[in-house]
Amino acid sequence: MTNIQTPLTDLEIARKADMRPIQEVAAAADIPAEALEPYGKYKAKINVSKLPQKTQTGKVVLVTAISPTPAGEGKSTVTVGLADALSRLKKKTMVALREPSLGPVMGMKGGATGGGYSQVLPMEEINLHFNGDIHAITAANNTLSALIDNHIHHGNLLQIDPRRITWKRVLDLNDRALRHITVGLGGPAHGVPREDGFDITVASEIMAILCLATSLSDLKERLGRIVIGYTYDKKPVTAHDLEAEGALAVLLKEAFKPNLVQTIEGTPALIHGGPFANIAHGCNSIMATNTARQLADIVVTEAGFGADLGAEKFMHIKARQGKFSPDAVVIVATVRALKMHGGVPKQQLKAENAEAVRAGLPNLEKHIDTIRRFGLEPVIAVNRFTSDTPEEINEILNWCRLHQTEAVVADVWEKGGQGGLELAEAVCRQLNQPNHFAPLYSPGEKVADKVQTIVKEVYGGEDVHFTDKAQKQLAAIEQNGWDTLPICMAKTQYSFTDEPGRIGRPQEFTITVREIIPKIGAGFLVCLTGEMMTMPGLPKQPAAMNMDLDDSGHISGLM
Amino acid sequence: MTNIQTPLTDLEIARKADMRPIQEVAAAADIPAEALEPYGKYKAKINVSKLPQKTQTGKVVLVTAISPTPAGEGKSTVTVGLADALSRLKKKTMVALREPSLGPVMGMKGGATGGGYSQVLPMEEINLHFNGDIHAITAANNTLSALIDNHIHHGNLLQIDPRRITWKRVLDLNDRALRHITVGLGGPAHGVPREDGFDITVASEIMAILCLATSLSDLKERLGRIVIGYTYDKKPVTAHDLEAEGALAVLLKEAFKPNLVQTIEGTPALIHGGPFANIAHGCNSIMATNTARQLADIVVTEAGFGADLGAEKFMHIKARQGKFSPDAVVIVATVRALKMHGGVPKQQLKAENAEAVRAGLPNLEKHIDTIRRFGLEPVIAVNRFTSDTPEEINEILNWCRLHQTEAVVADVWEKGGQGGLELAEAVCRQLNQPNHFAPLYSPGEKVADKVQTIVKEVYGGEDVHFTDKAQKQLAAIEQNGWDTLPICMAKTQYSFTDEPGRIGRPQEFTITVREIIPKIGAGFLVCLTGEMMTMPGLPKQPAAMNMDLDDSGHISGLM
Repeated sequence: MTNIQTPLTDLEIARKADMRPIQEVAAAADIPAEALEPYGKYKAKINVSKLPQKTQTGKVVLVTAISPTPAGEGKSTVTVGLADALSRLKKKTMVALREPSLGPVMGMKGGATGGGYSQVLPMEEINLHFNGDIHAITAANNTLSALIDNHIHHGNLLQIDPRRITWKRVLDLNDRALRHITVGLGGPAHGVPREDGFDITVASEIMAILCLATSLSDLKERLGRIVIGYTYDKKPVTAHDLEAEGALAVLLKEAFKPNLVQTIEGTPALIHGGPFANIAHGCNSIMATNTARQLADIVVTEAGFGADLGAEKFMHIKARQGKFSPDAVVIVATVRALKMHGGVPKQQLKAENAEAVRAGLPNLEKHIDTIRRFGLEPVIAVNRFTSDTPEEINEILNWCRLHQTEAVVADVWEKGGQGGLELAEAVCRQLNQPNHFAPLYSPGEKVADKVQTIVKEVYGGEDVHFTDKAQKQLAAIEQNGWDTLPICMAKTQYSFTDEPGRIGRPQEFTITVREIIPKIGAGFLVCLTGEMMTMPGLPKQPAAMNMDLDDSGHISGLM
Repeated sequence: MTNIQTPLTDLEIARKADMRPIQEVAAAADIPAEALEPYGKYKAKINVSKLPQKTQTGKVVLVTAISPTPAGEGKSTVTVGLADALSRLKKKTMVALREPSLGPVMGMKGGATGGGYSQVLPMEEINLHFNGDIHAITAANNTLSALIDNHIHHGNLLQIDPRRITWKRVLDLNDRALRHITVGLGGPAHGVPREDGFDITVASEIMAILCLATSLSDLKERLGRIVIGYTYDKKPVTAHDLEAEGALAVLLKEAFKPNLVQTIEGTPALIHGGPFANIAHGCNSIMATNTARQLADIVVTEAGFGADLGAEKFMHIKARQGKFSPDAVVIVATVRALKMHGGVPKQQLKAENAEAVRAGLPNLEKHIDTIRRFGLEPVIAVNRFTSDTPEEINEILNWCRLHQTEAVVADVWEKGGQGGLELAEAVCRQLNQPNHFAPLYSPGEKVADKVQTIVKEVYGGEDVHFTDKAQKQLAAIEQNGWDTLPICMAKTQYSFTDEPGRIGRPQEFTITVREIIPKIGAGFLVCLTGEMMTMPGLPKQPAAMNMDLDDSGHISGLM
């Protein structure tokens, strides 16, 4: 398996892998047959209520990253490879990952199931539709939209101001033409005209809710708390006011169950939920993570983008609401991304440049500093690419040694779990240390103070500026009693600042909060900095145009 | 089971039923384990390529109806009850039904899984999301939309005229505000502004394609033939021109597999596809029907609305493309609908009125005549409602006896298969007769002649009028070589004419074809008569508002 003469695509590697029937994977993970609901031969949903009652004691390893390049640094690959390595060390391990969205699959980015010999399987089915969770969220989101417009059409008893509806429709697609639309045209039989727009489904508040809810009743209550807009006299209108939460919960009943699959090496993986990492919190569901903590001794999971976004939200939003502490943190670094932070233009990232790697290390240094502020000692995983040279990799390892930071090379893309053994051993050493995890702010603090803490401690910035609009929104948020919610920063993933071009480790900057969007169902306040894309567009040559299906049902062109 | 003291709702009856594991249902139907892909414990998809090679010899019983009331006459209920009765008579039987759409489930109509003791199970899951087929169709339909707008945005090499795009977006919802919209607003980064609209997913041409395709390669070719609109010089543009069919087929790969479930009494049921019965052909998939014909001796299936719409299209579109002949036809009649055709207003349909039943019988008489024109001798099933009186029912039975037509009472709602034994015996007698089935027109005839045949022989009308617009479209259709396709009439289901109010059996009327829409992927020409609703709206009190989910996952309020 490790001696590949001709490089294969991820899909080819995935298709060559021997999968075990999902019943065997479940049995090995101590999931009883009555809790297993198979979806095909290699996927299943878990009915958590039928699992044996057991305390959730599994330790949580969070895989995060330095500030990424647009192609991503391979967090999912390292997550899978690390888990397979831990399995090889006879640790009872489970993976917990986010589900891929169809939009990027059809667009440019390709799938999100890891890569090389560190993938979750079945790759095609996980990347396409999976067990229907995202489609159920689309249906629930748009049912709420239909109920809103229907309420206005039938007399608008609640006095909803059509100009102040904040609830948007969604589709799990990249479709720029739906960003700004007008609906309700065509005359009185066809609703009330108003401006609207579609987001991609993973940006729906319902995705965030599904990922943060801890029980069916919590799910339904959160759905009821969704603020869909405001009345003519600016009072919030909720999904509960529209009597919608029962139907939405009914639509999400199956989607709320975590999905079980396996890695190429057979480690059980729960893949469930996939919220955006900017306007949402960017982690898989609490249901999946806590179910894995109940079944396994070690749970390897990831959070979106770099540690400034994903890890910060993992600590302050997910871990707090899921009532657990992260026990170890892996920061994925790549030669490529460090070269970028060292100033190398995108076109030259493949050329050897150890000096640029060195120049990029301050970015890694700040992420290490951030994790330490949370009371945790990170392990640096250098995710090796075939184009990396030993000199480039040594720049990273030497710097880490000099700065008393544990760093290892992860060769999991090429070698699977075998290539992650050293990383697994380093992680196990951390797991044996006492846990000093502590969040950086408490929810009761003032909103401005919470944002200030994130900007100073996590981004290394100087100050926060709230625009007039944001200040007005802040006043309304306090008036509505929403100010005790945690903060969900919506910031570019490419920089610690709110400007994507300022790579590396910028100093003395101010973050501007342009808008604060209360997500009362999800339970956080989104602070928008810069332009956030909530409905991507397709490139000139979308990946979809290269996809094909032959007569015997084999897919090609899926990345 | 037959002595119900307190009437239970369909959902309560469904929940009390003992379901067999889907593996057992499959084994009893001779479906080998390697062809079965379970979706949960009680649903599965069938990988048809792994079924033993066997000729499709099962006989096909089509359940159709008189012109219905808005509530429907219980075709699905009779279909299920008849199949259970045939199973009781030790006939190897399978049911083939359409999948319910979420729009009506959330709106007013409720589910579409039969009723009382003649239901398919699991009722909730079939009515909600099922195995994801309709969501996959939504995704495929809207991927094509995104590719169209993306092509125009990136330079419009194909010279698509944004004013002449006929391909609409879809959602599986009742959402009137999406009927007429404008997309692409907001400036040059957000696409090209144009008028657009959403249909409900079951109205998508892709739904019709999925239901008519006979293999994966046929599916992909049909997808490529979809005409999405026209160039500035009015040449048709296809999905193939956009290189889209591969990706669409990839998205539909799993949805193309028929779904296996069971009736309350354990008869295996294939539920697959659910196209509209006006702008599409209104039958479950050919894949499901032909798979059932391969596995069982008798296949009981249904077609949408009355025999003038569903049965006509079943004969001319589905049977022809599926290469089979219907062997027996059941026409469902109800006291309620006959009273309506006899002139009783909606509010008084529950009051006894044998005279009105008699006055309504000419509607039934025309449907009987139609089936006989196809060379088949129908069996009339009087679908008994608890409010029907013996006098009312006898009106129907006596008339049929007088007119040499076999008619029996079907008591399947209240008694399940036991209540359908007499019907099953009557159907068996028909199946033992030689089959004289013949379609009423051949595809090679002129379009106007084909429509003329349907209007005269099936509707009992005098003539057809094509508007100027339709005549122009007809000329273009001939020019493009599409005129050898069969006709798909889009007409109100409430009347033989194109005016919903003209109930009973109207005489001497002309049908006006206002528009002809070529559906080249599906392979038919839709002739629009009157206003067709392709995106329903929600009522003032949608069913969604009564739905709820309790903490243990039990659904209430689903009809």
